[in-house]
Amino acid sequence: MAAAVAGEEEVTNRQVILKRYVTGCPTVEDMEVVTGTLRLAVPPGSPAVLVKNLYLSCDPYMRTRMTKHAVPSFVPDYVPGKVLDNCGVSKVVLSGHPDFKPGDLLWGVTGWEEYTLIPNPVFCHMINHREFPLSYYTGVLAKAKKGEHVFVSAAAGAVGQIVGQLAKLTGCYVVGSAGSDHKVNLLKAKFGFDDAFNYKKELDLNAALKRCFPHGIDVYFENVGGAMLDAVLDNMRHRGRVAVCGQVSQYNLERPDSVDLFRLVGKHIRMEGFLVSEYAGEYRRRFEEEMARYLTEGKVVCVEDVAEGIEAAPAALVGLFAGRNVGKQVVVVARE
Amino acid sequence: MAAAVAGEEEVTNRQVILKRYVTGCPTVEDMEVVTGTLRLAVPPGSPAVLVKNLYLSCDPYMRTRMTKHAVPSFVPDYVPGKVLDNCGVSKVVLSGHPDFKPGDLLWGVTGWEEYTLIPNPVFCHMINHREFPLSYYTGVLAKAKKGEHVFVSAAAGAVGQIVGQLAKLTGCYVVGSAGSDHKVNLLKAKFGFDDAFNYKKELDLNAALKRCFPHGIDVYFENVGGAMLDAVLDNMRHRGRVAVCGQVSQYNLERPDSVDLFRLVGKHIRMEGFLVSEYAGEYRRRFEEEMARYLTEGKVVCVEDVAEGIEAAPAALVGLFAGRNVGKQVVVVARE
Repeated sequence: MAAAVAGEEEVTNRQVILKRYVTGCPTVEDMEVVTGTLRLAVPPGSPAVLVKNLYLSCDPYMRTRMTKHAVPSFVPDYVPGKVLDNCGVSKVVLSGHPDFKPGDLLWGVTGWEEYTLIPNPVFCHMINHREFPLSYYTGVLAKAKKGEHVFVSAAAGAVGQIVGQLAKLTGCYVVGSAGSDHKVNLLKAKFGFDDAFNYKKELDLNAALKRCFPHGIDVYFENVGGAMLDAVLDNMRHRGRVAVCGQVSQYNLERPDSVDLFRLVGKHIRMEGFLVSEYAGEYRRRFEEEMARYLTEGKVVCVEDVAEGIEAAPAALVGLFAGRNVGKQVVVVARE
Repeated sequence: MAAAVAGEEEVTNRQVILKRYVTGCPTVEDMEVVTGTLRLAVPPGSPAVLVKNLYLSCDPYMRTRMTKHAVPSFVPDYVPGKVLDNCGVSKVVLSGHPDFKPGDLLWGVTGWEEYTLIPNPVFCHMINHREFPLSYYTGVLAKAKKGEHVFVSAAAGAVGQIVGQLAKLTGCYVVGSAGSDHKVNLLKAKFGFDDAFNYKKELDLNAALKRCFPHGIDVYFENVGGAMLDAVLDNMRHRGRVAVCGQVSQYNLERPDSVDLFRLVGKHIRMEGFLVSEYAGEYRRRFEEEMARYLTEGKVVCVEDVAEGIEAAPAALVGLFAGRNVGKQVVVVARE
């Protein structure tokens, strides 16, 4: 397939669809890769863009969309029989939108398929730094605060590795947890964490945190929830802050693990959730430039776990919950 | 007993002691009222004060001190065989401290007993407004934020009634929950809440909150935890805030109820605990003057549930967990 197709050509389009709502841990059988066809066209007069997907981001939060919610979450639940969606990097094939033209590279919300017709590309952004691996644009990141003792869970994952490095750059003492000795070594040797531990080998998370933070934790960057959050709350300093990015240990549970929140009171702890999608416009642009500079200067490095081909997408997603990925999990649909 | 005793006289001193650590809901049998004696004297050269206790504050959080904690909480656990302590109003009998003299009225941390020797009165404060019922000084309060849709749980309790009235004074839309129709009427008729509901009669807390807040909750003043917190998180607005004051429904549980905290992420919700003891000095003084003005002007009213005599203290404390109190639970040890 050429990248810029002008006419009414029809292409095959492999898609990852949700087969059924998921209970417990997702399996590859909960998804299916089907082959359909797509007519390469955008509706006349519409602002739609038709894109060829290159890289798909594979994120634990997707599990939360595989359950039907009585109360809508921040993103719509997936629908059985329909294609999954998430952030990714795509190349414009056809465009009805004045801001985008064939050949442009975009990052934003797209389908888990080879080609996607995006009716209104409000969540699509032009890629400004072609000098970096395009897959980096699948990872959108949050920043830790300055000058404090910081703990990051799931620290070898997509978000954790960057958060830890940014916290180091701002002069924090940074400790991370991960689920294998290989990842722990990566945290210390490659990402420059001050310390790290393998939570699967610790009999007592509370004791592990006390060992790493004898004077307590100022900032906890929360990616996992459950028992880890519970242990962290016991080790927070007075007026400590918990930035809640995700809770990967909780997504497969019918009822979340019990956490004693009364400890927020005694130590005046603040817990705050956030979505990177809230930080749009100028803020996002500045962050992109800052990250580009850090990457160029080698101050931040990025480890990716790359699955090849759309057929590999379901297993890549399922693997997140077993901790099989080392670094950011990406699915390569096509390289151009 | 005269209030100001100069010499080395010995008095009987009835005390409420913890008999054993508590599991589940506390009962009066977990405590015991014993009669001892106390020599009316302060150690020479020490800053101690010896006080006669008048009013004792009876607060749900005391339950959390009746369990032995592996990790220390913000206040020490009670010790079996020893007298309980908490905030109260007392009259100075003897003083070795330059700031206090016999006859002064204090509020602060004191024992659940008739007389208490306070070795170092750092948590004692002079009472500045004798024009109000002294028992009001057992209730120390937190303030809601301005101009928003506010939900207060345990709204007819010690803290809830004041929080709701202050929120109304700042022009908020205020709804409260309580555990009886009588309390619900009190909220609407006496405290001026815009709406209120009896949580024990609601089959679905989520639906009750939707009825009262069709457009969602900006600020939740959290006094109960558990299922109510869970339902509230489903009804918070984007960037809503949860002020965590207490979690009375959770103190008797071995494991706290499960709450889905991932919802903090999707709606960018902030949860923050606090202790009134952190707001000391000038802030406390200003708050006291403001509350005094509101009380004088009749803009804030205060409902107390008064138990008579130190012997009534254990049952008053136990009654909090059955919701038997209407308003602030106080124990009168003596009236002067």
